[in-house]
Amino acid sequence: MDAAALWQRYQDWLYYHPELGMYLDVSRMGFDDGFVDRLTPALTQAFQSMAALEAGAIANPDEQRMVGHYWLRNSDLAPTPALKQDIDQTLADITTFTHQIHSGAVRPPSASRFTHILSIGIGGSALGPQFVSEALTPADAPLQITFIDNSDPAGIDRILAKLGDHLSTTLVLVVSKSGGTPETRNGMVEVQHAYQQQGLVFARHAVAITGDGSSLDQQAKTEGWITTFPMHDWVGGRTSQLSAVGLVSASLLGIDIQAMVQGAKIMDEATRIPQLKQNPAALLALSWYYAGNGKGEKDMVVLPYKDSLLLFSRYLQQLVMESLGKEKDLDGNTVYQGLAVYGNKGSTDQHAYVQQLREGVPNFFATLIEVLEDRTGPSIAIDNGATTGDFLSGFLQGTRAALYGNQRDSITLTIPAVTPRLVGALIALYDRAVGLYGFMINVNAYHQPGVEAGKKAAATVLDLQTKAVAAVQAAGQALSLTELAHKIQAPDQVESLYLILRHLDANGRSIKLIGNPAQPATLSVEARVEVR
Amino acid sequence: MDAAALWQRYQDWLYYHPELGMYLDVSRMGFDDGFVDRLTPALTQAFQSMAALEAGAIANPDEQRMVGHYWLRNSDLAPTPALKQDIDQTLADITTFTHQIHSGAVRPPSASRFTHILSIGIGGSALGPQFVSEALTPADAPLQITFIDNSDPAGIDRILAKLGDHLSTTLVLVVSKSGGTPETRNGMVEVQHAYQQQGLVFARHAVAITGDGSSLDQQAKTEGWITTFPMHDWVGGRTSQLSAVGLVSASLLGIDIQAMVQGAKIMDEATRIPQLKQNPAALLALSWYYAGNGKGEKDMVVLPYKDSLLLFSRYLQQLVMESLGKEKDLDGNTVYQGLAVYGNKGSTDQHAYVQQLREGVPNFFATLIEVLEDRTGPSIAIDNGATTGDFLSGFLQGTRAALYGNQRDSITLTIPAVTPRLVGALIALYDRAVGLYGFMINVNAYHQPGVEAGKKAAATVLDLQTKAVAAVQAAGQALSLTELAHKIQAPDQVESLYLILRHLDANGRSIKLIGNPAQPATLSVEARVEVR
Repeated sequence: MDAAALWQRYQDWLYYHPELGMYLDVSRMGFDDGFVDRLTPALTQAFQSMAALEAGAIANPDEQRMVGHYWLRNSDLAPTPALKQDIDQTLADITTFTHQIHSGAVRPPSASRFTHILSIGIGGSALGPQFVSEALTPADAPLQITFIDNSDPAGIDRILAKLGDHLSTTLVLVVSKSGGTPETRNGMVEVQHAYQQQGLVFARHAVAITGDGSSLDQQAKTEGWITTFPMHDWVGGRTSQLSAVGLVSASLLGIDIQAMVQGAKIMDEATRIPQLKQNPAALLALSWYYAGNGKGEKDMVVLPYKDSLLLFSRYLQQLVMESLGKEKDLDGNTVYQGLAVYGNKGSTDQHAYVQQLREGVPNFFATLIEVLEDRTGPSIAIDNGATTGDFLSGFLQGTRAALYGNQRDSITLTIPAVTPRLVGALIALYDRAVGLYGFMINVNAYHQPGVEAGKKAAATVLDLQTKAVAAVQAAGQALSLTELAHKIQAPDQVESLYLILRHLDANGRSIKLIGNPAQPATLSVEARVEVR
Repeated sequence: MDAAALWQRYQDWLYYHPELGMYLDVSRMGFDDGFVDRLTPALTQAFQSMAALEAGAIANPDEQRMVGHYWLRNSDLAPTPALKQDIDQTLADITTFTHQIHSGAVRPPSASRFTHILSIGIGGSALGPQFVSEALTPADAPLQITFIDNSDPAGIDRILAKLGDHLSTTLVLVVSKSGGTPETRNGMVEVQHAYQQQGLVFARHAVAITGDGSSLDQQAKTEGWITTFPMHDWVGGRTSQLSAVGLVSASLLGIDIQAMVQGAKIMDEATRIPQLKQNPAALLALSWYYAGNGKGEKDMVVLPYKDSLLLFSRYLQQLVMESLGKEKDLDGNTVYQGLAVYGNKGSTDQHAYVQQLREGVPNFFATLIEVLEDRTGPSIAIDNGATTGDFLSGFLQGTRAALYGNQRDSITLTIPAVTPRLVGALIALYDRAVGLYGFMINVNAYHQPGVEAGKKAAATVLDLQTKAVAAVQAAGQALSLTELAHKIQAPDQVESLYLILRHLDANGRSIKLIGNPAQPATLSVEARVEVR
């Protein structure tokens, strides 16, 4: 396509949202009018399904749940007055709580103010808050935030060591819908223990964000935690950033959560328009479909050219892959669907894997995110009048042009600045795009059976461990791995037993492995005698 | 395959390095003996090419360079006495410099000690140091480190705001082989400006790590910077972690760099053995070849189950994709090679995209990294005697089993603990695996033409900007975009001009756009009148 035709295509497909000042350019996706025509019925159907979802239809049939995160952004849309009241009240409660924390009206037992936040959660209860705090925390934030988002003992130790004496002025947010997510529960127990060790009363530092009546909710109430905020069953983890899950920490950090919600609301309205060219989420969904043939045949590489948006790709990685990565479609057919997402930031990544994007395997399409505002305040000239920001802008343009020149597709999303309103809009844009695309490929974008299966698989391993340790201790002599497996009626689990025992042995726990590590079959196991 | 056969396969293929205590398990890669036989000639050839490379052959033909990063780990292998002397001297200099900084013998003009490090570099000059500092910095590190790894004005502002008054006790490392990498140069100029603004003498805070005689080297010498350390042309950026590039900051942070180098040396020796089953790098290369059919048809997902290894996947993303992502093979054939890499950490990612890995598009293979040591010190029991670390171990095992059950291949690499020696070994293991794989697929794994092309493309954009601004200012009246493009003899660059002007306008710079942003073709541009 020559330069004039390309410039025309750019204009023909350019989407612009005047109120948000956001541009979306899909001109470098290679689809033609024929493709758009072919996809139009599926898109029309997706618009209808989405409208039904927003009206309160059961859009998550496996779990028999409504999908209501859109109501969080405009409570007038909630299907019942009670739900509307709940949404409005939670927002008001978060604001009140923020004032209480900032003013010291709610304070730790031994100091006049909380200074730090320790947020414990994983998946949807971590990625949104992490992304938003990285993108929007002001330089003079009233509190500093840290996250425990894993079940890694050394990781927890490191975070606690870093907090050090600040533990006494740390507000702990425990974020889990059921309270049963093991990583979050483990993190909470470890942190609770650390408080006890320092002679501090954990409950006076703790806030639960959880489902009404969950085990965590009950614990918080029994132990007299500072307060609780609700997680609703009609909000999925990966779309919960604009519920208490994301808003409590954001508000405490001094981020304008009203603006964030407002930005999402504006984008929700824009993405309800059932016309491709007037709907940026539909443009994204169509582009993804084109790139990967509706089957995720190409990866989505996300490159925000702005440090503060570094975690947006990880946020999208969860949103997109957990929503779309499904074995079955809604009719029960085996489809192995999905759309792989990765990326960090530009132009940094141009000095890493962009070499491969430009020249190597053409197994991806790129999403470049441009932020027009370089910084608040003026810039010095570096070179020939050009500023640091001009270079960044030039790198983005250069990469976009080179990808096009090498027949690699790209989308460019442009926002005026990284503000709460625009971040809210970005979140809403992508969750709608994922929803529409999910309907287009006919998968349930609102469940995650594999995550549940992962929890169960781990529970099986831990159960085997319990049995193995008991059997070794009862044996009173060394056992071969095979003997042990038979003793606990798990003859098929020799390898798993070996891996369990190797881990226990390495940590000087209750058992000891004897023999040559290079030849696992020769190992035997016996109880470790405690050294006192 | 039944459990007994699988356990036998596990043992048959298990690699164990006694001195390092490292295990590599490729039993869950589905290759058979026939595949191994077919690949043996290519692997044998790769071993020979690697031996020639280590002996000083020109292994980077495009740039006519030797590839010598192995000599850094054992200077006795360096092809000349001068090179050996240089390597040994640099290591000694780093140790001496570390003592000087820690003791205050070298100190900032206005304080008795440096307290912070600000490392400015990008790509290979950032990812290794970032990975290593995240993995190994001790809790009581003598200095704290921050990185500028981009040309983002707001990002730089944020880092400088965070350093605040500590700027006066900050040691600045500027890391660039040529000194010409724009992101690094821009970061340095911005930081230099910040020092001036605070009335501080930048040169008394600055250290250059750069090629002998580079523009940066000359600047450092002219301005009287504290010192310089060398970057050699026989060490590529992405394999420079065990040169001054990685070792200066690591050493200053109190990381045992001798142990890191020693770990790499031990692994280098292990991966020189020209026998598949005795060589963990060869096992990796073979597995990658199997997974992606030697063409990168599947992505490599890297999941370290340990918080401190979070950045290992980003480190590998660069190492693998920049090395292997090539348009041409060594014979000049167009091959579009590569191997896409992404990942963060387990079990965190199990609550994000692992849903897709388990059930969705089977377009990947996984590398799970297990760390046997949970933490230093004992763990509390969480549940039925199980600790936080037992859960983490259970999650890894559960995911590995589930992937296998769903016909998704995986590799499991197990290390006893995250120590300098093991991190050195990991770095060496993967750079050898990439080297061997590169020879197997016949690409030059040691150049990065696309990165150079990216720099040039950006320079073209900046050149257009300079011309456009001059033309608008000279015009004395509003111009349409097309008129402007003709004025500067760039009639084909209307779109690029539009993007440049939109960015300048958004930042209140020298020009102003007039018209409807939704319709770019209708815009006109004029010089902005300075408001005083």
